[in-house]
Amino acid sequence: MTKRTVSRRTLFAGGAATVGVVGGFAAAQAFEGDDQTTSGTASYAFRGAHQSGIVTPAQDRLHFAAFDVTTDSREELIALLQEWTEAAERMMKGGSAGPIGPTEGDSRLPPDDTGEAIGLPPSRLTITFGFGPSLFRDGKGRDRFGIADRKPDVLEDLPHFPADALDPAKSRGDLCIQACADDPQVAVHAIRNLARIGFGTVSVRWSQLGFGRTSSTSTSQETPRNLFGFKDGTANVKAEESSAVKEHVWVGQDDDPKSVWLAGGSYLAARRINMRIETWDRQSLSDQEDLIGRTKDSGAPLSGGDEFSEPDLDLPGRDGPVIPVDSHVAMVHPSANGGARMLRRGYNFVDGNDPLGGLDAGLFFIAFVRDPAEQFIPLQTQMAKSDAMMEYLKFTGSALFAVPPGIGRGEYVGQALFT
Amino acid sequence: MTKRTVSRRTLFAGGAATVGVVGGFAAAQAFEGDDQTTSGTASYAFRGAHQSGIVTPAQDRLHFAAFDVTTDSREELIALLQEWTEAAERMMKGGSAGPIGPTEGDSRLPPDDTGEAIGLPPSRLTITFGFGPSLFRDGKGRDRFGIADRKPDVLEDLPHFPADALDPAKSRGDLCIQACADDPQVAVHAIRNLARIGFGTVSVRWSQLGFGRTSSTSTSQETPRNLFGFKDGTANVKAEESSAVKEHVWVGQDDDPKSVWLAGGSYLAARRINMRIETWDRQSLSDQEDLIGRTKDSGAPLSGGDEFSEPDLDLPGRDGPVIPVDSHVAMVHPSANGGARMLRRGYNFVDGNDPLGGLDAGLFFIAFVRDPAEQFIPLQTQMAKSDAMMEYLKFTGSALFAVPPGIGRGEYVGQALFT
Repeated sequence: MTKRTVSRRTLFAGGAATVGVVGGFAAAQAFEGDDQTTSGTASYAFRGAHQSGIVTPAQDRLHFAAFDVTTDSREELIALLQEWTEAAERMMKGGSAGPIGPTEGDSRLPPDDTGEAIGLPPSRLTITFGFGPSLFRDGKGRDRFGIADRKPDVLEDLPHFPADALDPAKSRGDLCIQACADDPQVAVHAIRNLARIGFGTVSVRWSQLGFGRTSSTSTSQETPRNLFGFKDGTANVKAEESSAVKEHVWVGQDDDPKSVWLAGGSYLAARRINMRIETWDRQSLSDQEDLIGRTKDSGAPLSGGDEFSEPDLDLPGRDGPVIPVDSHVAMVHPSANGGARMLRRGYNFVDGNDPLGGLDAGLFFIAFVRDPAEQFIPLQTQMAKSDAMMEYLKFTGSALFAVPPGIGRGEYVGQALFT
Repeated sequence: MTKRTVSRRTLFAGGAATVGVVGGFAAAQAFEGDDQTTSGTASYAFRGAHQSGIVTPAQDRLHFAAFDVTTDSREELIALLQEWTEAAERMMKGGSAGPIGPTEGDSRLPPDDTGEAIGLPPSRLTITFGFGPSLFRDGKGRDRFGIADRKPDVLEDLPHFPADALDPAKSRGDLCIQACADDPQVAVHAIRNLARIGFGTVSVRWSQLGFGRTSSTSTSQETPRNLFGFKDGTANVKAEESSAVKEHVWVGQDDDPKSVWLAGGSYLAARRINMRIETWDRQSLSDQEDLIGRTKDSGAPLSGGDEFSEPDLDLPGRDGPVIPVDSHVAMVHPSANGGARMLRRGYNFVDGNDPLGGLDAGLFFIAFVRDPAEQFIPLQTQMAKSDAMMEYLKFTGSALFAVPPGIGRGEYVGQALFT
């Protein structure tokens, strides 16, 4: 077999080859391009203090997949993580999944890249890996990979919340991969090739495509709109708020003696939220605004100002506060939740139709938090119990993953867990 | 209710308002922008000799929906087509679905636009309507709308082909809408609002999202790749081939005395094709190329030349022709099919996963033809019987629609059918 290192994306092979990888822990999330808003040729560094795809400015498209590990072999699991690490690094640079390429090498062998991204630029692809609770101890209580004693206490299946109507086939998983890019074909190519590499070791448990990011993760981005038509994620933790990111997103060295391997990592909570859009669309504009607590037009809180004005939850109106006490803003505001904040990174989805003749549509919610027990579960409980918006939501999928820290030079993802 | 005409997309309201609609039959498909390759602010004309979204250069994203009509009232059906016509024209210009807008008007009423596309440019949106066989005569043989005698003979449910494993819930339909745009949120917004407008008159029977167009419909476009990693649609009818478009795409005045109302229209054949990508990925490069009959790299026929070279189906190789007789190219080449050609407009899709731990992925095939009985059915039969590639395909959805001609000034879509 000829061992030529050829980019799968021939048009950009030269460019991709000359982009240097930012080594070690130097400059996490360094942006390797001129301008993040214009260029499909731009790429992010794979290695750094933190994994890419968390504080990276949210790209427009998502392919998320959860996997079941089908082997009981620790060595095979580690080998897969090593292969995934190498493939992810190559693909984020705009290269092929394997070292040879989709059409290079010995034609009597299957190609080591599937080829549908030939000619497509890196498209700001990020690939983020996570480990589910069941990787540490499976459904039968078995410690298949000798890591049960390193499972953080907070890494547990999310509890059942009111309004949960979970589809087990869209929930949980031993491993997850979040691929985000500006081109869906690039995100799909990444997941598809990682699944291909994992054949025999993992199987796809569920996968979710998303479009139209519903959160900004950078102050440089405009706040996008969800399928209720409202701006979403205005109060999100943004990459530029470095102390808030440190406080709310990254797991600390001393958070849990069992999770020292996770320091610099995070937790990813995923929730597939179906929106009853047909019912929503029949509500009056003012009812919609009362349910959210913001205006639909500018996203300003009903207490006044502009989108980024602080909501005044006490400002009196004709009949109680101007911002209704059961509105979404009042429910999830940090002041009502002990200061808890999250870095959200969700996407809109439409997956065909529902049996009632409407669209199977909603929000694939992703949040990165330092501590799900403190930041996510209380907020979700509060919302599920009292948020007026819940009438229009149905939670059909749910998962929690520990997201290992960034990957240093010569390392594979999650290496500290296995050493 | 205040009747202000405000664009739902406030950022572009001024621009959208000043874009003139190309009236009557003057310049079908006129491109109302500077440069089709760069600008999200560009839009196409809604009215013209033919509907948009057929010879229009294929946009990158698709939302397709099929509907069941839930009323038996001819008047209600006509009223819906009138409303859809007005909404489609507004949305293609970058405006709101309704005349008022998502946040304008009386806040005690539901908005006449759902708002998720506020601030998004037209994104080259096209909206194309079609009528299924069951609109003319339903499953019980009823002529609900008094149009049965105008059903063209060739507008029949597609026959069962070998390898069909159709899901009835992803097949057929009384009506269809194809929305294509460069931004999926814009395509989804269009379908979602048309479904909202149709509430009480139609229900969504099935809907399909697609990304990564798998065909070029203009010589100005590069040929894209399907999920087998191969270039797809090289031999497609292109908009620039005006005599081929006339011959193969548009229904003629004299094609069928019952379908004079369809002259200038076309037939849309939709097929949801699942690809067994995990099996495909384990085939050698040369086997993949023999199955397709082209090289994976450049897309050139195995008989030599470049992508657009004519395949030499007789060029001898070591063991029969260089292009295997059961390869996809040999099977579907016009020379093997009495010169039949189609204008294809398909998209890649990934809809989660399949029960076997792979991705539910493939190609949502769309073709526009003048005569399905001559151009589509024989080709599909030939392919289903003998094409070596069939081993890797499973057909899970199927539908045929008559696509009325373009909409003149003051008309609604399909008007000639009802007058």
